[in-house]
Amino acid sequence: MADTTAQPTNQTPRRMRRKVKVPPVGSSPGTLIADPNALPPVMTLTLLSPKKSETVDNASLDDVAKARGKWPLLWLDCAGLADIGLIQQIGQMFGLQPLELEDTVNSGTRPKAEFLPGHAFVIMTMIDGGDTHRYEQASLFFGDGFVLTFQERIGDPFGPVRKRIASPMPSRLRERKSDYLAYALIDAVVDSYFPLVEQLADKTEQIEDEILGQTDKNQTRRLHLMRRGASQLRRPLAPIRDAVATLARSDSGLIAPDTRIFLNDTLDHATTLIDLVDAQRDMLSGLIDTHLALSQAKTGEVISFLTVISSIFIPLTFLVGVWGMNFDTSVSRWNMPELEWAYGYPAALGFMAIIALTLLGYFKWRRWL
Amino acid sequence: MADTTAQPTNQTPRRMRRKVKVPPVGSSPGTLIADPNALPPVMTLTLLSPKKSETVDNASLDDVAKARGKWPLLWLDCAGLADIGLIQQIGQMFGLQPLELEDTVNSGTRPKAEFLPGHAFVIMTMIDGGDTHRYEQASLFFGDGFVLTFQERIGDPFGPVRKRIASPMPSRLRERKSDYLAYALIDAVVDSYFPLVEQLADKTEQIEDEILGQTDKNQTRRLHLMRRGASQLRRPLAPIRDAVATLARSDSGLIAPDTRIFLNDTLDHATTLIDLVDAQRDMLSGLIDTHLALSQAKTGEVISFLTVISSIFIPLTFLVGVWGMNFDTSVSRWNMPELEWAYGYPAALGFMAIIALTLLGYFKWRRWL
Amino acid sequence: MADTTAQPTNQTPRRMRRKVKVPPVGSSPGTLIADPNALPPVMTLTLLSPKKSETVDNASLDDVAKARGKWPLLWLDCAGLADIGLIQQIGQMFGLQPLELEDTVNSGTRPKAEFLPGHAFVIMTMIDGGDTHRYEQASLFFGDGFVLTFQERIGDPFGPVRKRIASPMPSRLRERKSDYLAYALIDAVVDSYFPLVEQLADKTEQIEDEILGQTDKNQTRRLHLMRRGASQLRRPLAPIRDAVATLARSDSGLIAPDTRIFLNDTLDHATTLIDLVDAQRDMLSGLIDTHLALSQAKTGEVISFLTVISSIFIPLTFLVGVWGMNFDTSVSRWNMPELEWAYGYPAALGFMAIIALTLLGYFKWRRWL
Amino acid sequence: MADTTAQPTNQTPRRMRRKVKVPPVGSSPGTLIADPNALPPVMTLTLLSPKKSETVDNASLDDVAKARGKWPLLWLDCAGLADIGLIQQIGQMFGLQPLELEDTVNSGTRPKAEFLPGHAFVIMTMIDGGDTHRYEQASLFFGDGFVLTFQERIGDPFGPVRKRIASPMPSRLRERKSDYLAYALIDAVVDSYFPLVEQLADKTEQIEDEILGQTDKNQTRRLHLMRRGASQLRRPLAPIRDAVATLARSDSGLIAPDTRIFLNDTLDHATTLIDLVDAQRDMLSGLIDTHLALSQAKTGEVISFLTVISSIFIPLTFLVGVWGMNFDTSVSRWNMPELEWAYGYPAALGFMAIIALTLLGYFKWRRWL
Amino acid sequence: MADTTAQPTNQTPRRMRRKVKVPPVGSSPGTLIADPNALPPVMTLTLLSPKKSETVDNASLDDVAKARGKWPLLWLDCAGLADIGLIQQIGQMFGLQPLELEDTVNSGTRPKAEFLPGHAFVIMTMIDGGDTHRYEQASLFFGDGFVLTFQERIGDPFGPVRKRIASPMPSRLRERKSDYLAYALIDAVVDSYFPLVEQLADKTEQIEDEILGQTDKNQTRRLHLMRRGASQLRRPLAPIRDAVATLARSDSGLIAPDTRIFLNDTLDHATTLIDLVDAQRDMLSGLIDTHLALSQAKTGEVISFLTVISSIFIPLTFLVGVWGMNFDTSVSRWNMPELEWAYGYPAALGFMAIIALTLLGYFKWRRWL
Repeated sequence: MADTTAQPTNQTPRRMRRKVKVPPVGSSPGTLIADPNALPPVMTLTLLSPKKSETVDNASLDDVAKARGKWPLLWLDCAGLADIGLIQQIGQMFGLQPLELEDTVNSGTRPKAEFLPGHAFVIMTMIDGGDTHRYEQASLFFGDGFVLTFQERIGDPFGPVRKRIASPMPSRLRERKSDYLAYALIDAVVDSYFPLVEQLADKTEQIEDEILGQTDKNQTRRLHLMRRGASQLRRPLAPIRDAVATLARSDSGLIAPDTRIFLNDTLDHATTLIDLVDAQRDMLSGLIDTHLALSQAKTGEVISFLTVISSIFIPLTFLVGVWGMNFDTSVSRWNMPELEWAYGYPAALGFMAIIALTLLGYFKWRRWL
Repeated sequence: MADTTAQPTNQTPRRMRRKVKVPPVGSSPGTLIADPNALPPVMTLTLLSPKKSETVDNASLDDVAKARGKWPLLWLDCAGLADIGLIQQIGQMFGLQPLELEDTVNSGTRPKAEFLPGHAFVIMTMIDGGDTHRYEQASLFFGDGFVLTFQERIGDPFGPVRKRIASPMPSRLRERKSDYLAYALIDAVVDSYFPLVEQLADKTEQIEDEILGQTDKNQTRRLHLMRRGASQLRRPLAPIRDAVATLARSDSGLIAPDTRIFLNDTLDHATTLIDLVDAQRDMLSGLIDTHLALSQAKTGEVISFLTVISSIFIPLTFLVGVWGMNFDTSVSRWNMPELEWAYGYPAALGFMAIIALTLLGYFKWRRWL
Repeated sequence: MADTTAQPTNQTPRRMRRKVKVPPVGSSPGTLIADPNALPPVMTLTLLSPKKSETVDNASLDDVAKARGKWPLLWLDCAGLADIGLIQQIGQMFGLQPLELEDTVNSGTRPKAEFLPGHAFVIMTMIDGGDTHRYEQASLFFGDGFVLTFQERIGDPFGPVRKRIASPMPSRLRERKSDYLAYALIDAVVDSYFPLVEQLADKTEQIEDEILGQTDKNQTRRLHLMRRGASQLRRPLAPIRDAVATLARSDSGLIAPDTRIFLNDTLDHATTLIDLVDAQRDMLSGLIDTHLALSQAKTGEVISFLTVISSIFIPLTFLVGVWGMNFDTSVSRWNMPELEWAYGYPAALGFMAIIALTLLGYFKWRRWL
Repeated sequence: MADTTAQPTNQTPRRMRRKVKVPPVGSSPGTLIADPNALPPVMTLTLLSPKKSETVDNASLDDVAKARGKWPLLWLDCAGLADIGLIQQIGQMFGLQPLELEDTVNSGTRPKAEFLPGHAFVIMTMIDGGDTHRYEQASLFFGDGFVLTFQERIGDPFGPVRKRIASPMPSRLRERKSDYLAYALIDAVVDSYFPLVEQLADKTEQIEDEILGQTDKNQTRRLHLMRRGASQLRRPLAPIRDAVATLARSDSGLIAPDTRIFLNDTLDHATTLIDLVDAQRDMLSGLIDTHLALSQAKTGEVISFLTVISSIFIPLTFLVGVWGMNFDTSVSRWNMPELEWAYGYPAALGFMAIIALTLLGYFKWRRWL
Repeated sequence: MADTTAQPTNQTPRRMRRKVKVPPVGSSPGTLIADPNALPPVMTLTLLSPKKSETVDNASLDDVAKARGKWPLLWLDCAGLADIGLIQQIGQMFGLQPLELEDTVNSGTRPKAEFLPGHAFVIMTMIDGGDTHRYEQASLFFGDGFVLTFQERIGDPFGPVRKRIASPMPSRLRERKSDYLAYALIDAVVDSYFPLVEQLADKTEQIEDEILGQTDKNQTRRLHLMRRGASQLRRPLAPIRDAVATLARSDSGLIAPDTRIFLNDTLDHATTLIDLVDAQRDMLSGLIDTHLALSQAKTGEVISFLTVISSIFIPLTFLVGVWGMNFDTSVSRWNMPELEWAYGYPAALGFMAIIALTLLGYFKWRRWL
C-alpha cells in the first residue's frame, strides 16, 4: 500500500479528546498513523493445545512464525500501538486488511464486528479496571488456528482468561477452536462493565440517600419514591412480555396449539400491565410537574404578600422617621414647622392613610391581592 | 464441566444490589456460584395424572427419580438456591445445560424464553406478595412429562396453581401436558403484578387528591385535569386502531372484500382521532409551560416592585434615623451640628429627594420599572 | 369447564379502579367472575332481512333460539354483565370460547380483534355519551348470520345504527351480511370519540384564551403562538409525505414510470419540509428555554440588588435607632454615655461607614455585585 | 345509495373547529353532508392536448360531458363544496365511490392516497397563500384522460400550473397523461408550504435576536448558541449517512465490490460522527440544566442571606424604636419606666444580643447559614 | 426542455436563509434558476491514468470534450453555480437529467444518493473549512470514466484528494475506476466534519469547566458528573451489543454452532448492561429533578420565614415610629395626646401584641408557618 507515512496529528492530551477520532482529512484510506501518545508494544504469545498451554512473554514475530502450524491454536496479544511497522507485519502474516489495521490503530473507532475472507474482525471499547475508568480500544481478529488481540496498554480484562488457559484442569478454552477463545475474550470485555455499573449504582444510591435525607417525609419525597417504584415495576415487564411472546409464537413441538391460545391471553395480560404502568408513570410525571407548579405558585403568593406589606409600611415608616428627626425648630421657621401646627399630628396620620389606600388600590389593580 | 469451584463474591446485602448481576470477570461460562445470601433449598414434588394428584413436601432427588415415568406429569419446585450440587444433579437428571443453570442461580438475569433440544427454558422476575415487594427470580423448565421451577424462596404466586391441581374437580391442569402447567405458572407470575399496579394506582390517586386539594379551582388544577383527561382519552385509541386494522387486513372469509373498504374508512377515523388527541396533548403541554412561564414572570415583576420600593425607602429611612439620634449637640460642635442649621430640615429633605431620584433613574436604566 | 365459581373480588367502586383489571392470581383461565357492580342484563334482539327488520325488547334466550335460522341476520345486544349463567348460555349457543367470555366479563380488557373458528371477536373501549364520559367496554362477536354485542349498560353509540336498521328506506345494513353490521357498530364506537375530542379542543382553546389574556403582547405570548403555529404546520406534512410515497411507490398502471421519478422529487420536497419545520420547532424549544433562563437570571439579579441594599441599610438603621432611644442619661453613667461624648456623632458615622464597607467587600467576594 | 339526506351539523364557526371532523355518530357511511359554511361551487374546466389547451370558466356538467372523449385530457376543478348534488353527479360521471366523496366533502380528512379501480384518489391539506394561512382541503382524482380537483375555495396553488398549461411553449403537462398533471398539482400543493416555513424561520430569527439582544455575552447566550450549532451540525449528517448507505448497499454495476468495502468504512465514519454529535448535544443539555440549577441555587443563597440579615435586624430595630418613643415618663410610673432605670441601656443591649444569638442559632439549625 | 427561463427569486441574503430552499411555487420541475448570490464558475479538470495525472486549471468545455475517451478517468470540478447555461451543457455532455441539475443548482437540497441509467448522483452538505463554518452543497455525479463535482465555491475538502492524485507514488485513485474516486471525495466530505465536532467538544469542555468552576464540590456538581459518566458508559454498549449480535447470528463457518450459544449468553449480558445503565440514568434524571424541587422548596421556606418576620415587625416598627415623632404636644390637644396618657405605654404595647398575634393567626391559616 502506498503513502503510509506517519504524519503527526495535532492531538493534544485532553480528557475527552481520545473519544474523537480525527483522521487527517483526505488521507488515503488504510493509512496507518500512530497516535503520538501510543505506548511501545509488548507482545504476549499464548500457545494452546487440548493437553497443555505455553505462554511466551515479550514474544517476537519469530516466535509467532515458529509456533504457527505447530500448535493447534495460538493467541497473540499486542499491548501498545506505537509500532506501526510491527502491526503491518502482523497484518501481513495473518492476512489482515489495511482498513482493519487503520481501525485497530485509531483509537475511538466505533465497536463493530465484521467477517472477512479467512478471519473475523471485532473491535470493542474496553474499560480499564482501575479507579480512573479509562476507556480503551480492543481489537480482536480470529481465524483458523489464531486469535490476535490489540490493546492500547497491558490490560486486565484478559487476565482471568489467561488464568483459565493456564489452569491444569481440562478447559474448553484449550479443547475448542479459535472461535471459542475469541468468545471468551469478548465475554471478558463485556463482563468488565459490570463492576462499573455496580459502582454507578452504589454512588447513585448514596447520593439519593443524601438528597432525600435532607427532606422530611413530605410530598416531594413520596413522589420521588413512587416514580422510582413505577420505573422498577416497569423494567421486568417488557422482557417478560417478550418471553411470553416467544413461547406463544414458537413452532416448537413443546407447545401444543391449544396452549398457544392461553399463552396469547397471558400476552394480553402482560401488554395490559405495561399499558397500566405506563399510564401510572404518565400520571406521576404530570403530578410532579403540577406539584412543582403549585409550590412555585405558593412561593409567588408569599412574595406578593411580603411585597404588599413592605411596600405599604416602608414608606410610612420613612415618614414617621422624618417627623421623629431632631432638627431644632427654634433656630428658624424652616425647621420642621409642622411639628408645631395645631393639627399637625392628625394631618400626618391622614396623609399616611391616603398613601396606604393609594398603594392598596394599586395592588388591587395589578391583581397582586 | 471443569473449574466449577464456588468462589465467594463480594456482594454486600444492599437494596439495589441484587438487581445487578456481577459474574466474576473472565470466569468460565456455565460456572455455578451460589449467592452467599441464598437460602437452603426446599423441594416440593407434585405428581399429576388426569384422575388424581399427589404432593410430596421436602422431596428428595430419589422421590423424583422414582416418580419419573410412573406419573404422566411431575412438577418439581425448588425454593432456595444455596445448594449448587443439588441443582447440578437436577440439571443432569433432566438434561439441562450449564449456561441455563448459571442463569438460574444468578439472580438478576433478564427475563427470557428459550427452546433447547428436549425442553424449554423460561426465566422471569416475580414479585413477592408481601408488603416489601421484593423482586425475585423464577426459572422454569418444561419438557416431556416434567416441569421444573426454581425460585429464591418459597413464594406465593404458585400457591393458587397448587390449589387448583389439588382440587377434586376435573382440571385441565391434570389432563393436559407439561406445556399447560407451565403456562399456568407463567400466567400466575404475570398476574401477580396486577395487585401491585393496583396499589400504585391507589397511591397515585391518593397523592393526587392531596396535591390538588391544596389548590383552589384555579388554572393549574384545570390544566392538570385536562392533561390527565387527554391522556386517558388517548389510551384506548391505539389498541382500537390496531383492532380495526386487524379486521381490515384479515384474509379471513368472515370479512367480505367490500366491507374491508368500509373498515379502512373506520381505520382512517381512528388514525385521525389519534392525531387530534395528540395535537391537543401537544397544545396542553405548550400551555402548561406557558402558564408556568407567565406565573414566574409575574413573580419576577412583584419582586422588581418590592426591590424598587425597598431600595428607595430603606436608605432614606436610615437617613431620617440618623437625624433622629439623640447625640447631645451642646457637648461639642461636632455633635450633629446640622440639626441647628437654619435650613437644616429643607436641606435634608432635598438631599433625600436627590437620592430617591438617582435610584429611580438607575432602575429605569436597568429596566426594572 | 370446571371451577367456575364466582369468587367475590375486593374491588372498591373508585374513579380509576375500573381501568385496572385484577384477575384473582392463579385462577383458572376462562373463569367467569361477575364484577360486583355489574348491572343485571337487558337483552335486545334485532332481526334483519333485506326487506324488513324487527326488534324484540327484553328478549329471552328462547326468542334468540327461535329466530336463528329463520332470519338471515340477527343481532343480540346484551347490556349489563351481572348474569354469568346467561352469558355462558349465549356463549354455548354461538360457540364462543371461555377465554373470550372472560374478556367480555372483565372490564378493563385491552381493545383487540381476534379471528376464531366460526366467528370473529372484537373488544373495544366505548365512551358513554353523557357529561361524565364514563369509559365502558363493548364486546362484539360476529359470524355467519349473527352479531352479538355485550356492553356494561344500555349505551348510546348503537342507537343511530338501530335507527338506520329500522328506517323504511333500503339500507346496506339489512342487505349485507353480519360483517357489514359489525363494521357499522365498530364505526359507531370509533365515531363516538369525536364529540369528546371536540369538547377537549374547546376547553383547551378556552383556557388558552384565559391564560394568554393575562399577558400583554410580550415575548412569552409570541413564543407560545409561534410554537403552536409550527406544530400546526407540521401536522399535515407527515400524512402528505405518506400519500406522495404511496403514489411514488405504487405499481398501479395509473402512474407511468417516468412520472414516478417526478413524484420522488416531490417526496424529497416533502421530506425537506418536514426537516425544516422540525428544525424550526427545535430552535423554538431552545428559545423558550433560553427565554425562561434569562428571565430567571433577571429576577436573580433584582434579588441580589435588593439583598445588597437591604443588608447594608437594615443594620445601620438599627444602629441609628439605638442612638435615638430615650434612656435617661442623667440617671446613671451607664445610660448611653456615648451621646454625650465630644466626638460621639462622628464616631458613630465612622463606625457605620466601616460596617457598610465591610458588607460591600463581602458582597464583592461572593460575586453578588 | 340510500339515506343521503343532508342533515345539518351543529358546527360553529370557530378557530380550531374546522380541523375536527365530526361525522354524525352512526350515520351511514358514504353519506354526503355539506358543511353549512361551504361556498357555492365554481367549476373550471381545462382541456389539454399536446398542441393546445382551452379553459372554460364557470363550466357546467354539460361542458364536461361534451369535452370527454374529444380531448385526450381534461381537468375539472371544482372550488366550493356546498352543492352536494353536483358533487354526486360528478362522482357518477367519473365512477367515484361514495366514501371518497364523503372524504372530499368533509373538511379535516387526513391526507392520504388510495388506488381504486379506474382511478386514484389523493387528499391533501393545502395552505391558502394569503396572510391568514388558512388550512384548506384539496381532493384530487385522476384516471384515464381526466383529473378532478375539489377545493374549498378558489385557491392559489393551482394558478401557476394553469399558466404553464396555457403557455404557448411545448410543455410536458400537455404532452403526457393525467398522472403527470396530477403530479404537477400535488407538487404545487407541497411547494406551497415553503414560503410559510421561510416565514416561520424569519420570525424565529427575529425573536431570537430580540431575546439574545437582552443579554450580555454571558454563559446563557453561549450555551444557547452552542446548542443551536450542535443541532445544525446534526441535521445534514443523518441524510448523508443514508446516502452513503445507499451507495454501499447498491447492487448497481457502478460500484465495484471492492469499493463497497471502502464505502462501508465511510459509513462507519458517518455513524461515528452522528454518535459524537449526539454525545455533545447530550452534554450540552446536561450543562444547560446544571447551569440553570446553579443559578437557582445562587439565588437561593442570596435570599437566605437576605432573610438572615433581615430577620435579625428587623425585630431589633422594632425594639430600639420602642425605646425611642416619646411617652411621657413623668405622667405615670407605667410610662416607659425602663428609660430611667440605672442599667436600662446595658440591659436593653443585652436583651437584643440574646435575641440576635437565638435567631442565629435557629438559622444554623435550619441550615440556612 | 421547455420554460427554463431564469426567474429571479426574492431570497434575501440572511443567516438561516440559505438552508431554506424555496422553489417558485408551480414552476416546471427541472427548471434551473441560478441563486442571485451564486458565484461565477471555475472549472478544474483532472485527468487520471494509472501511470500519471494532469490537472487543467480554468478548464473549458472544449478541454473536457478533448480529454474524454483519451484518458481512462476524468474528474471535472465546477466551483460556482451562477452560469446555468454552462451547467446545462455539462449535463447534456454527460447525460444528466434536468431534475438532477435542478437539485445541483438549488442550495439546501437534502443529501441523498440516486442511481440513474449510466451514472450515479450524490448530493451532500459540506462544511467550509474556515472559522465561519459555512454549510455548502456539493453534488457529485459518477459514471463510466468520469466524475463530476459541483460546489458553491472553491472548497477545501477536495484539496487533499487532489494532492494524493498528483503524488508520484502509485495510488489506488489513479488505478481504479470512477467509483473509487467518487468514494474518496465522499469520504473527504464526511471526514471534514470531524474537526468541527472536535471543536464543539472543545468548547463544550471549556464551558463545562467554567460552569462547574463556579460551584463547590456540592451535590449539583456530583449529579452532573454522574449523569455525564452514565452517558459515557452507555455510549459504547449499544454498538458492542450489535457487534456481539453480528457474531452470534452469523452463518460464517468461523463460528461453530456450539459457540453461538455462548455468544448468545454474552448478548444477554450486553443487553442486561444496557438495561442497567438505562435504569441508572433514569434514576439520576429523577434525582436531578427531585434535587431541584427540594432546593426550590427550601428557597420557598426561607422566603416564607422572611415574609412572616417582616410582615409582623414592619407594621410594628411603623407604630413605634409614630409614637417617636416629635409633634409638640403643648401646642394643641390634638397633637399626640396618647403620649401623656397614664397608661399610654402599656396600651401601645398591648395594641402591638394584638396586631402581632392577629398576623400570626393569619399566617397559620394560610399555612405559611
